[in-house]
Amino acid sequence: MKDNLLVIKIGGNVIDDPPQLERFLASFAALEMPRILIHGGGKLATAMGRQMGIETKMVEGRRITDEQTIDLVTMVYAGLVNKKICAGLQKFQCNAIGLSGCDANTIRAVKRPVKEVDYGWVGDIKEVHAENISLLLAAGIIPVFSAITHDGNGQLLNTNADTIASEVAIAMSKYYSATLIYCFEKKGVLVDLKDENSVIRQIDPFTYRDLKKQNLIHAGMLPKLENCFRALNHGVDRVKIGNGRLIEDFNSPHTTISTTSPK
Amino acid sequence: MKDNLLVIKIGGNVIDDPPQLERFLASFAALEMPRILIHGGGKLATAMGRQMGIETKMVEGRRITDEQTIDLVTMVYAGLVNKKICAGLQKFQCNAIGLSGCDANTIRAVKRPVKEVDYGWVGDIKEVHAENISLLLAAGIIPVFSAITHDGNGQLLNTNADTIASEVAIAMSKYYSATLIYCFEKKGVLVDLKDENSVIRQIDPFTYRDLKKQNLIHAGMLPKLENCFRALNHGVDRVKIGNGRLIEDFNSPHTTISTTSPK
Repeated sequence: MKDNLLVIKIGGNVIDDPPQLERFLASFAALEMPRILIHGGGKLATAMGRQMGIETKMVEGRRITDEQTIDLVTMVYAGLVNKKICAGLQKFQCNAIGLSGCDANTIRAVKRPVKEVDYGWVGDIKEVHAENISLLLAAGIIPVFSAITHDGNGQLLNTNADTIASEVAIAMSKYYSATLIYCFEKKGVLVDLKDENSVIRQIDPFTYRDLKKQNLIHAGMLPKLENCFRALNHGVDRVKIGNGRLIEDFNSPHTTISTTSPK
Repeated sequence: MKDNLLVIKIGGNVIDDPPQLERFLASFAALEMPRILIHGGGKLATAMGRQMGIETKMVEGRRITDEQTIDLVTMVYAGLVNKKICAGLQKFQCNAIGLSGCDANTIRAVKRPVKEVDYGWVGDIKEVHAENISLLLAAGIIPVFSAITHDGNGQLLNTNADTIASEVAIAMSKYYSATLIYCFEKKGVLVDLKDENSVIRQIDPFTYRDLKKQNLIHAGMLPKLENCFRALNHGVDRVKIGNGRLIEDFNSPHTTISTTSPK
């Protein structure tokens, strides 16, 4: 039987709020099982870009990553945010190691082909090398991934953190029974965005289809849910969506994604 | 008998010059023995700071590191420079992993006590945890250290890269027969700064004392030489100072530091 592994992704709302981040890191450090953290960059890249005179260009919520911008996000995600998180976890005796995809060749990507939009130095994941990640976990070291990958030819690439989380969980499911958890600002997927307590407890492919038909899924949630189903269909055992409190108490309200209806 | 290990430090002159960096990384990747790379940040932190409106304050060649500046150097050293080097080494099939002191708790430091000068968030190394570094080397993974450490209480610290190199070499000499190599812009320690070919081939404590007496050691070289002797006196087997070409050809002219006179 495989050991359990948690793959947890935190979003900008946690990273941008120091007290909330501190609380999250304390809870994450207190977990006792093998685990991997994946983080985005939050609003810091945009703020830092403004300070440096770099204009932020977004298309459908995705950052257009020109030459200056890949340097900016590498500095902010792989440098500032990643190292602050690692130093913060070390404070709570969690032996974290900060990684970007180039580190130990853990995540290799390809530059997204130019179609209608040229996203610039944005990478689509090609391969996650699970062996080196496993080696760290076996030594009690906890990988913390930033959303920066590489193409194997010396180029760094800006990569969606939600997708990194699902692809890492999929790759690790070769060695572990993996649970993928997306932590964001809400308690889970909501029926009514204005009602924090309208959490949909379980979404399977049938309810997902119905919810989409009724336009009840917020546009920003669609790619996240696609990542969830992809993970479940490729070896990940459990997928959950909730807020940071879910890490403190796994019984707190959240959304479970499943490929089958509850019995 | 212990295996050989190279601990190589590169300075700003290599980092600031893309073709020279590319050439260095190709040579470093081609080496076949276990090795560790340590890099400073070059002029990039100063340039980036200027772009962000952060003033650079130096005292005796050391950067005063206030709150804004520790964020800046973490972004530039641990983010941009470290990840570019790692992606560059991966291109040449060298399985590099970028580390700062917080990563796997490899280098713990203490904030430098305020005496005549308050250096701010500058760290003096307290402990290098060699076990986790050895674990990576044993798996064929090549550590690449930036000059950022942590205090174990969540604070990142700006730390002299020359000192990181000597302290890492000292700690690793428990497991390996370590050679420490400082690569900088000259072929070695020069008698005449204007004559690139006036390399002093060997410096031992006696010649060092004589050279100092005659004011033949450039002020900036003194702390580097102190690091060299400290390394030799604490378990490191060989210490060399040269330029990047030394990595291509270990027989090219350079300075060897030794604790004893040549027989």
